[in-house]
Amino acid sequence: MSMSVQRGWNFLQTPGPTNIPNRILNAMHRPAIEFLGPDFINFSDKIFASLKTVFKSQGQPFIYAANGHGAWEAAISNVLAPGDMVLVPETGRFALSWKYMAEMLHVKCEILPNNHREAIRPEDVAQRLERDTEHNIKAILLVHVDTSNGIAADIAGVRAAIHKAKHPALLMVDTIASLMTTDYRMDEWGVDVTVAAGQKGLMLPPGLSFCVANDKALAIADDNKAMPRSYWDWRDRLDKEVFYKAFCGTAPEHLLFGLEAAIDMLLEEGFENVFSRHARLARAVHAAVDKWAESGALEHCAVNPGERSNSVTTILLNKAYDPLELRDICRERFNIGLGNGMGQFMDHSFRIGHMGDLNEAMLFGVLGAIEAGLKLARIPYSAGGINAAIDSLTRD
Amino acid sequence: MSMSVQRGWNFLQTPGPTNIPNRILNAMHRPAIEFLGPDFINFSDKIFASLKTVFKSQGQPFIYAANGHGAWEAAISNVLAPGDMVLVPETGRFALSWKYMAEMLHVKCEILPNNHREAIRPEDVAQRLERDTEHNIKAILLVHVDTSNGIAADIAGVRAAIHKAKHPALLMVDTIASLMTTDYRMDEWGVDVTVAAGQKGLMLPPGLSFCVANDKALAIADDNKAMPRSYWDWRDRLDKEVFYKAFCGTAPEHLLFGLEAAIDMLLEEGFENVFSRHARLARAVHAAVDKWAESGALEHCAVNPGERSNSVTTILLNKAYDPLELRDICRERFNIGLGNGMGQFMDHSFRIGHMGDLNEAMLFGVLGAIEAGLKLARIPYSAGGINAAIDSLTRD
Amino acid sequence: MSMSVQRGWNFLQTPGPTNIPNRILNAMHRPAIEFLGPDFINFSDKIFASLKTVFKSQGQPFIYAANGHGAWEAAISNVLAPGDMVLVPETGRFALSWKYMAEMLHVKCEILPNNHREAIRPEDVAQRLERDTEHNIKAILLVHVDTSNGIAADIAGVRAAIHKAKHPALLMVDTIASLMTTDYRMDEWGVDVTVAAGQKGLMLPPGLSFCVANDKALAIADDNKAMPRSYWDWRDRLDKEVFYKAFCGTAPEHLLFGLEAAIDMLLEEGFENVFSRHARLARAVHAAVDKWAESGALEHCAVNPGERSNSVTTILLNKAYDPLELRDICRERFNIGLGNGMGQFMDHSFRIGHMGDLNEAMLFGVLGAIEAGLKLARIPYSAGGINAAIDSLTRD
Amino acid sequence: MSMSVQRGWNFLQTPGPTNIPNRILNAMHRPAIEFLGPDFINFSDKIFASLKTVFKSQGQPFIYAANGHGAWEAAISNVLAPGDMVLVPETGRFALSWKYMAEMLHVKCEILPNNHREAIRPEDVAQRLERDTEHNIKAILLVHVDTSNGIAADIAGVRAAIHKAKHPALLMVDTIASLMTTDYRMDEWGVDVTVAAGQKGLMLPPGLSFCVANDKALAIADDNKAMPRSYWDWRDRLDKEVFYKAFCGTAPEHLLFGLEAAIDMLLEEGFENVFSRHARLARAVHAAVDKWAESGALEHCAVNPGERSNSVTTILLNKAYDPLELRDICRERFNIGLGNGMGQFMDHSFRIGHMGDLNEAMLFGVLGAIEAGLKLARIPYSAGGINAAIDSLTRD
Repeated sequence: MSMSVQRGWNFLQTPGPTNIPNRILNAMHRPAIEFLGPDFINFSDKIFASLKTVFKSQGQPFIYAANGHGAWEAAISNVLAPGDMVLVPETGRFALSWKYMAEMLHVKCEILPNNHREAIRPEDVAQRLERDTEHNIKAILLVHVDTSNGIAADIAGVRAAIHKAKHPALLMVDTIASLMTTDYRMDEWGVDVTVAAGQKGLMLPPGLSFCVANDKALAIADDNKAMPRSYWDWRDRLDKEVFYKAFCGTAPEHLLFGLEAAIDMLLEEGFENVFSRHARLARAVHAAVDKWAESGALEHCAVNPGERSNSVTTILLNKAYDPLELRDICRERFNIGLGNGMGQFMDHSFRIGHMGDLNEAMLFGVLGAIEAGLKLARIPYSAGGINAAIDSLTRD
Repeated sequence: MSMSVQRGWNFLQTPGPTNIPNRILNAMHRPAIEFLGPDFINFSDKIFASLKTVFKSQGQPFIYAANGHGAWEAAISNVLAPGDMVLVPETGRFALSWKYMAEMLHVKCEILPNNHREAIRPEDVAQRLERDTEHNIKAILLVHVDTSNGIAADIAGVRAAIHKAKHPALLMVDTIASLMTTDYRMDEWGVDVTVAAGQKGLMLPPGLSFCVANDKALAIADDNKAMPRSYWDWRDRLDKEVFYKAFCGTAPEHLLFGLEAAIDMLLEEGFENVFSRHARLARAVHAAVDKWAESGALEHCAVNPGERSNSVTTILLNKAYDPLELRDICRERFNIGLGNGMGQFMDHSFRIGHMGDLNEAMLFGVLGAIEAGLKLARIPYSAGGINAAIDSLTRD
Repeated sequence: MSMSVQRGWNFLQTPGPTNIPNRILNAMHRPAIEFLGPDFINFSDKIFASLKTVFKSQGQPFIYAANGHGAWEAAISNVLAPGDMVLVPETGRFALSWKYMAEMLHVKCEILPNNHREAIRPEDVAQRLERDTEHNIKAILLVHVDTSNGIAADIAGVRAAIHKAKHPALLMVDTIASLMTTDYRMDEWGVDVTVAAGQKGLMLPPGLSFCVANDKALAIADDNKAMPRSYWDWRDRLDKEVFYKAFCGTAPEHLLFGLEAAIDMLLEEGFENVFSRHARLARAVHAAVDKWAESGALEHCAVNPGERSNSVTTILLNKAYDPLELRDICRERFNIGLGNGMGQFMDHSFRIGHMGDLNEAMLFGVLGAIEAGLKLARIPYSAGGINAAIDSLTRD
Repeated sequence: MSMSVQRGWNFLQTPGPTNIPNRILNAMHRPAIEFLGPDFINFSDKIFASLKTVFKSQGQPFIYAANGHGAWEAAISNVLAPGDMVLVPETGRFALSWKYMAEMLHVKCEILPNNHREAIRPEDVAQRLERDTEHNIKAILLVHVDTSNGIAADIAGVRAAIHKAKHPALLMVDTIASLMTTDYRMDEWGVDVTVAAGQKGLMLPPGLSFCVANDKALAIADDNKAMPRSYWDWRDRLDKEVFYKAFCGTAPEHLLFGLEAAIDMLLEEGFENVFSRHARLARAVHAAVDKWAESGALEHCAVNPGERSNSVTTILLNKAYDPLELRDICRERFNIGLGNGMGQFMDHSFRIGHMGDLNEAMLFGVLGAIEAGLKLARIPYSAGGINAAIDSLTRD
């Protein structure tokens, strides 16, 4: 596809897709291979095994040629039947989207309301479950990092709340925007079903998504005859007699070649180093925003610093200012793609994605461009955001 | 992924995925872009429009991050409700697979039996529909080229049969193995829903699939409340208010970049030239098989020459011989991947894919390797298959 | 090759090689072709023609599989004979290197001395030539932008000086570090021989270099029997009877594929826009350095702002500080490669390359990393370099 | 560059450049790096060391950004002075080209005549050297495999002849067309200077070439003040004080990245396996040509089977037939690039390159296309060339 003439790199600071490392693109620049041949079967075995490391789980991973919405549907359709009820803590706009999808699949959803500027409270979950004495709530659909507001939920806390309420509901967690930007411990945290996708912390081109199911979830899926499903169906994908069922047909080979490279890169860097790099860069973004915000024209969406994610930062503008103009300037003059506002913040916010293949110098570029963009858009800001970021990064 | 040491090109002559042109891989070797930004939206509009040219249809195309099985499910789940009945002419093994999927989606399927070595007969369809006086049959699921036996069905003939029977059933056609190897005229042939995928005649890495629906099918889908679906849902994908719904979330950008390159290449060559190239190469394969078959140890699966597809040729071996050994030799000594036997022919057949990015010299390479493989596997053959192919190709 | 684990992009801010656009790398990711076949011959004709546009010259371009030193030798060996004398205005370290090479080729060199912190003065050239009443000076070897100190010479002024002195010396200009970063008008400025290379403003992988010769230079080369040469020989390369002589053997096809893409990109952007982008970015670098320099610990090498090039900025450090430590920090912590000190400034300077595929956001990244590096290396600097750059770039 | 529309792979069966493996192209699809930085310096050390393995020599390798002609000039200009005399056994057209270059460098050349259809005879060399009692002959310029006629010279035999004649002449060997297609043992065979290039057996894009010099040659070069040279100069490139002198300026990084991948691939396959693969494929070509030649319209250029190289096969056509027409048909109808005739065979021969990244199936493709081309060009041939190749390859 052709694009307008711009020279130099484009910084893709949307919260997905993210900047793709050249090594991943190279891994995908190769011929297809026999997808029923021995090389691909061995490769596939290796990939499925490595996903257990990624999710810190002994559960069963499933790989879909699909985006994250596909994996959402896969998770719902396997463990829930039409008419089942789920609880959806309102982490932000993505909680509402997952709910919307569940309803299309004839699942009843109850929102556990929250204000989109603070993390959901595990005690709210506990209280609601305690009231559900008949155990009508079959599952909790929980978004780890809500891409709309950049707020991270306390997964372990929610599991503790479920335990406290002695409730059998499944804990289903969407890690699409959190995976490989922050620690995620599926088994330790007692998650039953994890949903994930490739185009964020995994640095892949979009088109690949994942479920991981523990034994409890698999058993429920086995008994779930009521929900029509085939492509997403876990039973079928576990049919060991027929290799290609693992992918319900032709495997998305190239995205898998990319996935192998991504996991290799993450392992070489070390997961802990990956997480601390994301935390370090996120802190620098937060420091820059804090500085700019001294003008009073903008502020962090996430009011509690400790709840801000490693993945994405949402910034609210005073309603006098237009985030679209800022984003257009950043794109057209500075080759920086920023995230749009979403949900209740749609018209007066923008987002900075800072996950995946990112480093300090790239971040200085992004923050410099935003600061220049604020200036050109005549949005008041307190100058020195980058200096604050430099201070943050040289202190760490 | 690492592979055993082999030098030179690997010929991927499975009936999908196929040999991917370097130009397509290069088109995919680029950064992701803002998928809600103006460049991507313009690009997406262009791609959707170009698909109408590909399918020769004014119907509505849908693009899925999914493989062909996903598009099968998309077609079924939009226009059929649980409990609906469909008729599945038994073109070969893939008709049975599509039926299997429909049944998982709670659709009742009736097979219109056939022998897997001849094309299905439109008059059989007509007769069955005429008996369905209550119009219980909601749709006919028809595979254009069945990848298992390489036989092409007469789509226009089946439409004529439906007309003859004055039956309202939808005609749903799977063009996964036929698209861009042979002419396909969705609107002229009266097809209501087309299913397709990228990794065969479109020469793409696997992971992209398509539905095209005409107005009749779209109207049925609009009214179809009974089937739970979301990712596949056409109504949602046509919601013009929210661009990203066209892809139900993040678009599979890189496969779309590849698709654009593929369509450009096919248009540059000219669709008619693409089809005649495939026909010419298929005839050369058929000539080689005819020559080898003089030994009596092997034969064409498709008994009627006129029913052999442009896409893939299935060859039956006398049961004394092992096609696995032949395929292993071709893979390990000659870098040629051949298709496995399927269905009733599983243990005594192999398949030669000859679709996509293929030319005469590549075909000589494939046929030479198979002839050498037959020799090494001690499968009797009449020598001179390539000479027959040369005669065929220099006559054309 | 393997490198230490670093995530994100590496910013290559050496003054060559430079950051290579993905489009150029893709253009090179293709098979070789028959280099004596019609496609390559047509392609070659087109490339030679397009070079005339690049150099703004109707002279004869020559393309070498070689680096810039190779083109230096080509220029010398064609128009000069052993024992000939040349004048080398001391633009900086690269003037001395070209002189070194000329001496290895048995050419006598006289340096026209200068202080490496100011541009050479055309009137000095005029005075020296006026003293050369016997016209012993056969040529002037002039570096347009000396990569060592980032100072640009006044080519047109030197030509005027030669005219003033009524001297027949050839004017030979090295544009290796200036081409496509600043305007260069070979014919208008009366340059007889131009030397250039691909890995700087042309954004190519290193390995390609160029000479352009006007009729006067070609005629001298034709008569030059005394200098042994073959690979570099212009007469041989102009032998139209034998196509491959244009490249003296096998053409460096892939670098030429890249060159075509580079020239296409530069034409799409527009040469004037390319030059003004470089000027704009250079001014921003200069503004940042001016700010940092308020501390007194560092300063511009080029004392006269108007003589600072669009290509590279050389910064002198107070001798108390170690530029190596700064460069190591920038490389290891911030993925930024900076240029080493050269010549008399070797031990107390570093260089920022800002040519080629560069934009504002990248520059903010570079300047941010340097500012952070200064801090970590405990080199006193006045904070706010990036703010100065932002001011500069939003003013333009 | 754009090319005429052809689908599928192009088989580049010229004797250089050759088919480039995707792995090498991927290795080159990456950013440039600091060429004076620690990563590149370590990488460079590794590459220089690995070249000793390639050439089976403890001599000093030199790497040039240049093609093979450049390395020819490098070899001559370092060890020979203007007026020196060399002996050039007339292996074929390339012996004459090397001589032409030596003469341009003011070196006197004496041809040791031969007929271009048989290998040169070591005893002829011995006799000529024995007559040179004053040791005027400073070196012997010997082409290992002459690309024009596909004939391999007996290097060890020539060294034995020199010994026999007790003559001090240097033995300088051009391995451009032989390296990594057949065994080459620089030290064991007593070669003083080896010349090589990347675009043949090393499978690289053109633009890289090599010299290897033993101590005797290095010492002569050290004393050689008379020949003007700089870019090629060995002394300068061995100046350990200044790293970049190893490449006389900017290193051709990307071709070196490709070279690393190439050597890795060759080591993984095993040099002996590489040579035996080339020998096996060459025998199959020879068998096919023998079969076709039964018609009497064509014949092997190399009359003695034992002298035919592993790299390239030259075929002479009866003068009634036009090799250009055959090559045009092969290129335009069959995507096969064949080598042109050269020297005395220019107008009635063509060449099949069979070196580098080649396997059996590719060869069947090439031979099938040539057989089809002979048919279409109405050149009489005895059908069954591929069958002969199949017999040859399944017998081995």
